[in-house]
Amino acid sequence: MRIGILTGGGDCPGLNAAIRSAFYRARKYGYETVAIYDGWKGLIEGGHTEVMKEADVKDIYNFGGTILGSSRTNPYKIENGEKQVLENIKKHKLDAVIAIGGEDTLGVAAKLHKAGVKIVGIPKTVDHDLSETDYTIGFDTALNVAAESIDRLHTTAKSHNRVMIVEIMGRHAGWLTLMAGIAGGAHIILIPEKKVNIDKVCEKVLERKKRGERYTIIAVSEGIEMEGHGKEKKKLDAFGHIPLTDQGLARTLQALIAEKTGMDVKAMVLGHLLRGGAPNAYDRITAAKIGASAVDYIKEKKFGMMTGVNGGKVTPVALEKAVAKLKTVKEEDFELLEALME
Amino acid sequence: MRIGILTGGGDCPGLNAAIRSAFYRARKYGYETVAIYDGWKGLIEGGHTEVMKEADVKDIYNFGGTILGSSRTNPYKIENGEKQVLENIKKHKLDAVIAIGGEDTLGVAAKLHKAGVKIVGIPKTVDHDLSETDYTIGFDTALNVAAESIDRLHTTAKSHNRVMIVEIMGRHAGWLTLMAGIAGGAHIILIPEKKVNIDKVCEKVLERKKRGERYTIIAVSEGIEMEGHGKEKKKLDAFGHIPLTDQGLARTLQALIAEKTGMDVKAMVLGHLLRGGAPNAYDRITAAKIGASAVDYIKEKKFGMMTGVNGGKVTPVALEKAVAKLKTVKEEDFELLEALME
Amino acid sequence: MRIGILTGGGDCPGLNAAIRSAFYRARKYGYETVAIYDGWKGLIEGGHTEVMKEADVKDIYNFGGTILGSSRTNPYKIENGEKQVLENIKKHKLDAVIAIGGEDTLGVAAKLHKAGVKIVGIPKTVDHDLSETDYTIGFDTALNVAAESIDRLHTTAKSHNRVMIVEIMGRHAGWLTLMAGIAGGAHIILIPEKKVNIDKVCEKVLERKKRGERYTIIAVSEGIEMEGHGKEKKKLDAFGHIPLTDQGLARTLQALIAEKTGMDVKAMVLGHLLRGGAPNAYDRITAAKIGASAVDYIKEKKFGMMTGVNGGKVTPVALEKAVAKLKTVKEEDFELLEALME
Amino acid sequence: MRIGILTGGGDCPGLNAAIRSAFYRARKYGYETVAIYDGWKGLIEGGHTEVMKEADVKDIYNFGGTILGSSRTNPYKIENGEKQVLENIKKHKLDAVIAIGGEDTLGVAAKLHKAGVKIVGIPKTVDHDLSETDYTIGFDTALNVAAESIDRLHTTAKSHNRVMIVEIMGRHAGWLTLMAGIAGGAHIILIPEKKVNIDKVCEKVLERKKRGERYTIIAVSEGIEMEGHGKEKKKLDAFGHIPLTDQGLARTLQALIAEKTGMDVKAMVLGHLLRGGAPNAYDRITAAKIGASAVDYIKEKKFGMMTGVNGGKVTPVALEKAVAKLKTVKEEDFELLEALME
Repeated sequence: MRIGILTGGGDCPGLNAAIRSAFYRARKYGYETVAIYDGWKGLIEGGHTEVMKEADVKDIYNFGGTILGSSRTNPYKIENGEKQVLENIKKHKLDAVIAIGGEDTLGVAAKLHKAGVKIVGIPKTVDHDLSETDYTIGFDTALNVAAESIDRLHTTAKSHNRVMIVEIMGRHAGWLTLMAGIAGGAHIILIPEKKVNIDKVCEKVLERKKRGERYTIIAVSEGIEMEGHGKEKKKLDAFGHIPLTDQGLARTLQALIAEKTGMDVKAMVLGHLLRGGAPNAYDRITAAKIGASAVDYIKEKKFGMMTGVNGGKVTPVALEKAVAKLKTVKEEDFELLEALME
Repeated sequence: MRIGILTGGGDCPGLNAAIRSAFYRARKYGYETVAIYDGWKGLIEGGHTEVMKEADVKDIYNFGGTILGSSRTNPYKIENGEKQVLENIKKHKLDAVIAIGGEDTLGVAAKLHKAGVKIVGIPKTVDHDLSETDYTIGFDTALNVAAESIDRLHTTAKSHNRVMIVEIMGRHAGWLTLMAGIAGGAHIILIPEKKVNIDKVCEKVLERKKRGERYTIIAVSEGIEMEGHGKEKKKLDAFGHIPLTDQGLARTLQALIAEKTGMDVKAMVLGHLLRGGAPNAYDRITAAKIGASAVDYIKEKKFGMMTGVNGGKVTPVALEKAVAKLKTVKEEDFELLEALME
Repeated sequence: MRIGILTGGGDCPGLNAAIRSAFYRARKYGYETVAIYDGWKGLIEGGHTEVMKEADVKDIYNFGGTILGSSRTNPYKIENGEKQVLENIKKHKLDAVIAIGGEDTLGVAAKLHKAGVKIVGIPKTVDHDLSETDYTIGFDTALNVAAESIDRLHTTAKSHNRVMIVEIMGRHAGWLTLMAGIAGGAHIILIPEKKVNIDKVCEKVLERKKRGERYTIIAVSEGIEMEGHGKEKKKLDAFGHIPLTDQGLARTLQALIAEKTGMDVKAMVLGHLLRGGAPNAYDRITAAKIGASAVDYIKEKKFGMMTGVNGGKVTPVALEKAVAKLKTVKEEDFELLEALME
Repeated sequence: MRIGILTGGGDCPGLNAAIRSAFYRARKYGYETVAIYDGWKGLIEGGHTEVMKEADVKDIYNFGGTILGSSRTNPYKIENGEKQVLENIKKHKLDAVIAIGGEDTLGVAAKLHKAGVKIVGIPKTVDHDLSETDYTIGFDTALNVAAESIDRLHTTAKSHNRVMIVEIMGRHAGWLTLMAGIAGGAHIILIPEKKVNIDKVCEKVLERKKRGERYTIIAVSEGIEMEGHGKEKKKLDAFGHIPLTDQGLARTLQALIAEKTGMDVKAMVLGHLLRGGAPNAYDRITAAKIGASAVDYIKEKKFGMMTGVNGGKVTPVALEKAVAKLKTVKEEDFELLEALME
């Protein structure tokens, strides 16, 4: 048995723990593990693969990133993409494939499974927006990095009587912002699931100032939408009453809030800090668990499945179901968690 | 409504997040919160309580320790202890009590409930050995501190071809040692639930050396038992073939393994580092959640209950049941997790 | 003796250690310490001061920010500013003043000294650009935060074959970028003191790619100047905001390098993370030392002096000399340190 | 030119930064670098050396420990030790040797220089007790780890009204304990240079309790001497183990202080945590600087010298002078720094 393994989409801490664990579990069963480099790209055209050796993985349980490299290449968005992938799987004599990734990577896996590939998926996303699993690799570490970063910003915001905006990853789901905001003691939290009324935000800022609070920290997801405007994506074209050209969200908010409140406002984008560095203990352990389980699934011929974690146990979820819809923050989740903010 | 709140047993990060959250939830309902100082001690004899104000709790969501102080005082081990507690509850006009603690503190709470006190418990223990909840305040933070400490020890052990023993808290349950050992890349893990055969440990150390590994890291719970010996408690009286007087476990193992393997062995005890410092994001958020839920339980008259967390949701568990038996590591848990160690 | 104490300019970790230490040294001599709030602003118009008590400072040795608040208010840029300051000093019966800050704050102090105020300065700047002292409060902590942030970015840049730009504070001096870049293993370092030729930067990026390096990290000071362009410094508006027509340096570089190399380029701005959080050990100790020395200088009537640190010893430097010129990176410093980068 | 390089004595963070930097500087000059493994041991008997390649050092600037391994082997304490070293230097065709270590390692280097070896030393010690240099590899990182550990212990000590003893490395010199104690807010600091009167320590503990302080943190060097007792240093056996009859210093103090004050006393030994993990920014940069300088000295034929750092500049110091006497804490240093403790 030769198992190909790849990581797709944005990297994050914990991927290597899963890769390592899959290697050892495979070795235990007498299987060979083949590194597929740079995500689906490694199975397109010539492809790029290599048989894995213990020396490659032995020390990587606490390394950030992925030793397999990653890419956002989607074979279904490339002409003959699927065909090339199927040919390369044959050419490299891969009996099965483990794909580690988020919605996009696992969506490809679901389709390849339909096309006959013996495939198992492992959930990974710092956005935490996969609907059929409580755990996704990278989220808990990113959450801690974000919360610690917000911690750092309190003293400087307070010393200067400032409004401090912290932009956090999350295009469609606000989990990371919501949880980091609460953990980091943010005073206002803005997420994609709740349309933002900038006037109400400014009112809250001014109301805090009025009752003597020296500063306000606002945690905001990169993917928020504002009332009276179109969806504020990375390209912020026509913004409305303030003309902006690709200013980025944080800076746009900074300008708007400064204008409306007359306060000193600073903004920072946590960006790739959230994807870097060593995984924390929970990510190391759980990523390792589901990495090993993926090999178990292959042994047990549970193809087309994702190694979900539900109620603390690794549970198989059909890939097709896993990518059918995103898990976003519901009104009641927001209310429940917001109640902890006071 | 006046709610008294206390923390008992060993302190840990996350207690303050729960206290703060209970205060704000109570205020929302128009209830008053009363600090009971130093655990059950604060309700014995004169007692020591004070009405809590927002300024006391506002900034403490990420502070380690407990602003209420703690003690290991158990009223049921003191003459007239229960009577004094009941009288002080009356004297301080407490309509209900929230007790945050582990098996011992919650055991007292269960008995007081039987004696008529309107009480709710919140689970806390770095040992993670409460049977009816997936979450206990302090465990996840302690796990990360322990794992990061083990991380630090790799380079120094390797540079010197050493065996490095790391003693970790855990009298009856090995959860913290097992999880931290795996997360930190320990090579051998010894826990109270599995009798330790020191000769087999040394064999494994020598086997590693033989196949070229420069070093071995051993994670060990403070409460392990050794084959051929009595339970190795904190007082290590008669140890057997090597006479020791109160050497402590780590040092005893150091001597034994050095003698049997002829290798350079160092030992360190993580001790109170595991209880210190700021809680991590998961502890901040979840402690806050169950702190608020405890007040909800009081409002809903769910007395005699503990705010357990199961399958990701806060769920009421009868205190009596919660303290009936400890949650220890089962053979299958150990095997499952040990399989990630290779 | 009543000593007023203030902090001016951008806050940073270590200020509170200096304030605390000054308080205790003053108390030892029987002097009273008066908090002047929000920098020079606290001595303008009505002013805002308060007598300091032990409870205010006891626990702040490792707190970030400044309990005194800060501002960028410069009395010499305000009509009658000096006059108001002199009057408020008299009104609040301050016999002497300690001003903690960078070039701007100490420049004001130098002028006030000429105007007869008994003043001592304490050097603070994360830019490290004060010429007459080896130590400035905040630099060492900011350096470590910056280096650790760059550490985190390696794995994610490598996983994705990326160029990663890290923008670091430093308007006129590149010390922080240069040192953090070297400590963090950056591959290219761009500082204000050396005009940047973007084509040469791109050549180096491509040369690295050619010899098989998967990624390149570029550390860049916010204040760099590019050949063929005007000074790319940020033009700030009244609130210190980047005006809406300005893309920001990091984003400009990102676009330019992506265009010229055809590579995936990401950018991040460390910004206020560098000013936040707890001071490290060196900053705690040295800030405390010079905080105490400032009071000693007052006792010894060494007015108009700054508590410089040179060759490891606290040495008095005339304020006028201290602010006469900035300490920037010299060609030989750059070469010496750049030689460590390979 | 073939340069052998070795690390001797206890490992610490920063060694690899120096090794890496020496490799690159040597390569720049067209020199070959030869790894000598496990300290002087690598030049005794058969010896163990290997030509270094870029891949060995490229990524190690922020790795703890030493890729060369280390040992406490001293050729002058072994029969024919010097002869073997000289022969192996000849056999391995080493034109020069760089020895990185503390007093012991550099003492050997000084003697070998007299015996004709072209040798340069690099100072390394977490104890900071080398007299002719302001900088020694590892000290600043150990200081920060120690200070952060003490930070963690405050909350738990305070929550339980405890005396917390923290034992820190330092056999003959108290620098690390003194500086970490001040940075970490310890209330009592005990160092080898000042005989300890345990009754006075207890008086101070009780005096603190009396004025309402809930807890006391005592930072103590492993090498302190107590009045009325013999030197309480650890007597180590052949493997460096504490003999079984020895309680260890921290535990002895714990027992004594608990008995004399009637308070709850806990003790912890930071031990090898201080030698582990990644070097901080200052250690990375300065170790790299003196690593490169050591190669420069060889080029410039400055043999028998140590790369000292004085007044911020790398300055050559005769090895013989460098090891002539230890730099211990003087009464005035102690007083100066103790004044910051209040």
